[in-house]
Amino acid sequence: MTTIDLNQIQQRLDQFAQERDWEQFQSPKNLAMALAGEAGELLAEFQWLSEAESSQLDERKRETVALEMADIFNYLMLLCVRLDVDIAGAVDRKIAINAERYPADRVRGSAKKYNEYE
Amino acid sequence: MTTIDLNQIQQRLDQFAQERDWEQFQSPKNLAMALAGEAGELLAEFQWLSEAESSQLDERKRETVALEMADIFNYLMLLCVRLDVDIAGAVDRKIAINAERYPADRVRGSAKKYNEYE
Amino acid sequence: MTTIDLNQIQQRLDQFAQERDWEQFQSPKNLAMALAGEAGELLAEFQWLSEAESSQLDERKRETVALEMADIFNYLMLLCVRLDVDIAGAVDRKIAINAERYPADRVRGSAKKYNEYE
Amino acid sequence: MTTIDLNQIQQRLDQFAQERDWEQFQSPKNLAMALAGEAGELLAEFQWLSEAESSQLDERKRETVALEMADIFNYLMLLCVRLDVDIAGAVDRKIAINAERYPADRVRGSAKKYNEYE
Repeated sequence: MTTIDLNQIQQRLDQFAQERDWEQFQSPKNLAMALAGEAGELLAEFQWLSEAESSQLDERKRETVALEMADIFNYLMLLCVRLDVDIAGAVDRKIAINAERYPADRVRGSAKKYNEYE
Repeated sequence: MTTIDLNQIQQRLDQFAQERDWEQFQSPKNLAMALAGEAGELLAEFQWLSEAESSQLDERKRETVALEMADIFNYLMLLCVRLDVDIAGAVDRKIAINAERYPADRVRGSAKKYNEYE
Repeated sequence: MTTIDLNQIQQRLDQFAQERDWEQFQSPKNLAMALAGEAGELLAEFQWLSEAESSQLDERKRETVALEMADIFNYLMLLCVRLDVDIAGAVDRKIAINAERYPADRVRGSAKKYNEYE
Repeated sequence: MTTIDLNQIQQRLDQFAQERDWEQFQSPKNLAMALAGEAGELLAEFQWLSEAESSQLDERKRETVALEMADIFNYLMLLCVRLDVDIAGAVDRKIAINAERYPADRVRGSAKKYNEYE
């Protein structure tokens, strides 16, 4: 089991920012930009790979990807702090919404978006 | 304290995909694209707001943003499953790297990237 | 007047790819990823700047930004080649759509999305 | 031949914004966000398609993609206006840089980034 204390991570990241006087730069707007920039770096790791290759990364590449994923995770956690969002609750709500939008017996094996179903 | 069991969330998301026969679409390459697409939706929520406004969202907007954040979180968790990445470990490694790159007494109050320091 | 021959740019970029045997990597899917990755790099140039600062770049930063913009432009041109899209025509159609969605006397001074108007 | 007058498109887009009193929202920072948001929408069109499928779009999907590409093009043109960037010149400079970074006889058939070559 991998329990993780999100509050503790959020506090570490917030303290890291405070020690550097960086809260002034970390408006939600700016953090959303930084997160999307990191998502762009993640894309860049995969853009010239086939889908099959993307499933079989060597150890060095996998670590590069894992650290990009950590960047995204960390900006997401900082956004939680700045916006006072409980991400675990939001995840629950979103999974419930998706379960309603995409009933298993209706969408099986199809990648259409929910609003493309008639 | 908000502990969260990442394995359990990952299992829920993986099962959600399996019930819909969606694993075939969820190569790491495709999940990275989906995550970046959601990061684009997060951006869209903030793009015409000032930084100050982005810190003072009304409840409806804050929930919209929280659900976009949940989308990003969930694609990140699915990437962890498909790539067998331990995100908590990656977060620890990345924070350690950043602590070395950005010593507090050197970068205080500055937003330059680490490779812009001489 | 800055007329530009889009076909000629597209041919240069396509030839550049052919000389390197890179067409095999340049599926529309992959080019969309590469374009979005470059958009992420553009974001990174602006993420810690205020809006006012983003309007007053020094020459070095402005050139960095211009080259990121060129990257985006070039991937867009390659997408035109691979998908046989006439971008000038698409631009005309999109401006017409936006003119209908956002009548000037209705949306003046407001940044809401068209579907947020009642 | 598809010559296109970039100045004229830029003027149309700038006038469209002026008629709606939207220049106030169009800082370079915000335009970069909007462009990246549109790049995210482009990604979303391709994320569950195989590379082969992405080359064989039906007409409806191709038009959807073309209009997303137009959105990106238009935000790029507005950025040119706000930053006074000559995109045709930047494209020339960037192609020259890439020709030096990626000599054809060295990189043929390989998708590595230039800094991954020893």
